[in-house]
Formats: sequence, structure tokens, C-alpha cells
Amino acid sequence: MEILNVQTKEREQYVEITDEIKRLIKNKKIENGVIFLYVPHTTCGITVNESYDPAVAEDIMHSLHLIAPPKGPYKHTEGNADAHVKTTITGSTLFLFVENGELALGRWQVVFLAEYDGPRTRKVYVKFFKEV
Amino acid sequence: MEILNVQTKEREQYVEITDEIKRLIKNKKIENGVIFLYVPHTTCGITVNESYDPAVAEDIMHSLHLIAPPKGPYKHTEGNADAHVKTTITGSTLFLFVENGELALGRWQVVFLAEYDGPRTRKVYVKFFKEV
Amino acid sequence: MEILNVQTKEREQYVEITDEIKRLIKNKKIENGVIFLYVPHTTCGITVNESYDPAVAEDIMHSLHLIAPPKGPYKHTEGNADAHVKTTITGSTLFLFVENGELALGRWQVVFLAEYDGPRTRKVYVKFFKEV
Repeated sequence: MEILNVQTKEREQYVEITDEIKRLIKNKKIENGVIFLYVPHTTCGITVNESYDPAVAEDIMHSLHLIAPPKGPYKHTEGNADAHVKTTITGSTLFLFVENGELALGRWQVVFLAEYDGPRTRKVYVKFFKEV
Repeated sequence: MEILNVQTKEREQYVEITDEIKRLIKNKKIENGVIFLYVPHTTCGITVNESYDPAVAEDIMHSLHLIAPPKGPYKHTEGNADAHVKTTITGSTLFLFVENGELALGRWQVVFLAEYDGPRTRKVYVKFFKEV
Repeated sequence: MEILNVQTKEREQYVEITDEIKRLIKNKKIENGVIFLYVPHTTCGITVNESYDPAVAEDIMHSLHLIAPPKGPYKHTEGNADAHVKTTITGSTLFLFVENGELALGRWQVVFLAEYDGPRTRKVYVKFFKEV
């Protein structure tokens, strides 16, 4: 598998990783298939949404505070219980399609690593299945 | 890949697309494998749940209002920030199993396109991997 | 496909199923590939998170009560509407990577069946795709 390294800079931050994924597709010469993305962390997820207006990601992060405010009350006392909650809600896996050598995203879609307990260096594991 | 077109009729509506998926399986003569469903939109997701009682989908939509009410306050000012939030919570991808030519859903499961900013014509991208 | 049977003991309980998945990988002699996990229920999901501190799972379950409290008000009157909501939020599918015969989980990650309407005997469907 391939591994993407992503440096996050804030405690909560949606970091766009679309270009890194496109580069992998080119390097691997994938023409048609599915890309599987797996985040090996428990306080950071992965999602697809809009980045054209950066306010969208801010609204998502802010809305999740209504379920999981940074300050508890929580039983997990490491100060990042909210990040664990948001990770399960966001999800740790994502797949994308490749068609004719291009990532088949919708017009407004980008891929975000959803950091909830940064700043940290995060990894995204990547596997490809080519269609035959 | 195949593309399903789905016409939604309300701003928020869970539209069942199970039959369309079953038709694709038949047409493609898939006997055993995995179907990957990808929604190329940022204000509409995909999920599996119950449709026998239509109140279930209504309860899900209503509950998500507690995190993302239609009227903000949001920073994204297009009037659909709530739909972006719900899309990330619901998810944009789903996979299903095919066993012996049949969709391997649980007894109460159907597949819903989760419209959060309709009415619109939506697309669902579909790829199949056959088991060998 | 393979089927895992999981006995849950509480109404809401995150049950670790990582060892059962590892056993399947060994039995099937998967060296490299992707494991697809599918939950055929509408009141029970699947997620990856931390189990080292059991409080993490409790915090996730408790936080989801803020969106979907066990007692409504709900339109679905079977007493488990909250479980349907949490299932869509958590998700019904998950994939994992196998590298060199080992499950490629992050250091703190385990796989949880997320029971929201137990106790019951639950199933998890499993399919493998080997990399060639």
C-alpha cells in the first residue's frame, strides 16, 4: 500500500488532500478502478465535501461541537474525547472512483482529512484496485 | 462505471434506490461481488436503513436538525450549510454485497439517497468488482 | 462470503470484533488485500476507534444521545427510533487493509460492532479482495 503523510496545523482543521491523491493515480498509472483510503488514527477522520467556500468546513466543525464540545463532561480524561466522537461520526474510510485516468469527483467535491486533535503528522493508507 | 439518476422532490427526502441497484445487478449478470456506490454531490449522502415504516427516515432527518438546523447561524451563506454538514455525517459512499446473484441486504434494509438540499436531479456512480 | 456472529449484552454497547477478523485473515491466508465488513441490521453499526480506555466508547454512545435520546419524541413508535438514527450516523459498512498477512490497524484502533438496540445476536458479513 501507499502512505500519504499529512501535516495538520490546528487542533481542528479540514485539510484538503485531493492533489496528493491525484498524484498517486498518475504515478501508479491507474486508468479505471477504485481507490481505498484508510485513516489509521482514532482522533482524525476522512470525508468528501466542498472547499470552494472555506466556510463550509468551518460550519461542519462547528456543528459537530453541538454533539461533542471540546470541554466535556467526558469519562475519557485525556482532553480529546470530543475528537474520538467526531472521528466515529465522520468515518475513518473513504473510497473514490478513477475513470479514464481521472479522479471521478463531483464538481464541488474535494477530499478532506478531518483533523480533530492536532496539530499532528497524520497518515492515510491507500490501496488501489484496477478494473480489468 | 454506471450512473443512476435520481429525481428528488423535497428539500430533505430519503429516496429509496434499492430497486435501481437490483436492476443493475441483473443487467450486469453479477453473481458474487461488491457494489460500490459513490455520490458526487456535497449536499446529499447515501445510507442504509429501514423503509417499512416511513417514520424512520423522518426521525433520522429530524434528529440531524439538532446538529444542523436549516437556519444557522452558519458562515456559509448560500442557505444550504446544514446540508453540507449532514452530508459529511451521513457519508458519500456505500458498498453492498452480491451473493448468488442477489443483493445481500438485511431483512429490514433498503438503500436511501439522502437528499438534504433538493429538489434536484442527483447522480449515483456505481462500480462492481466480481469475485473470482 | 463469511459471516461473523456477535452476541451483544446491553441495549447500547460497543463490542470489539478485531480478534474475530484477525482469525478470518489467518484462516483465509490473506496476505495483501482489503476486507469489506457489512452489517445487515438497521439498529446497529460498525466503526473503528480506541478500546484501550473503555471510557472512549462510553463517551461516543453518550454524545450520540444528544442527537438521538432513547426517549423521543419520535414518529417511529417501536421504541428504537434512536437506534435507527445512530446507525445511519455511525455507518453500516467498513473496510480494512491487510498487509503481509497482518491487519493494518493504527496503534490505537480496534473494530467495534456498535450495538444500539440490544441485547441481540448480530451478524457481520465479510468479503475479501486479494491484491494480485
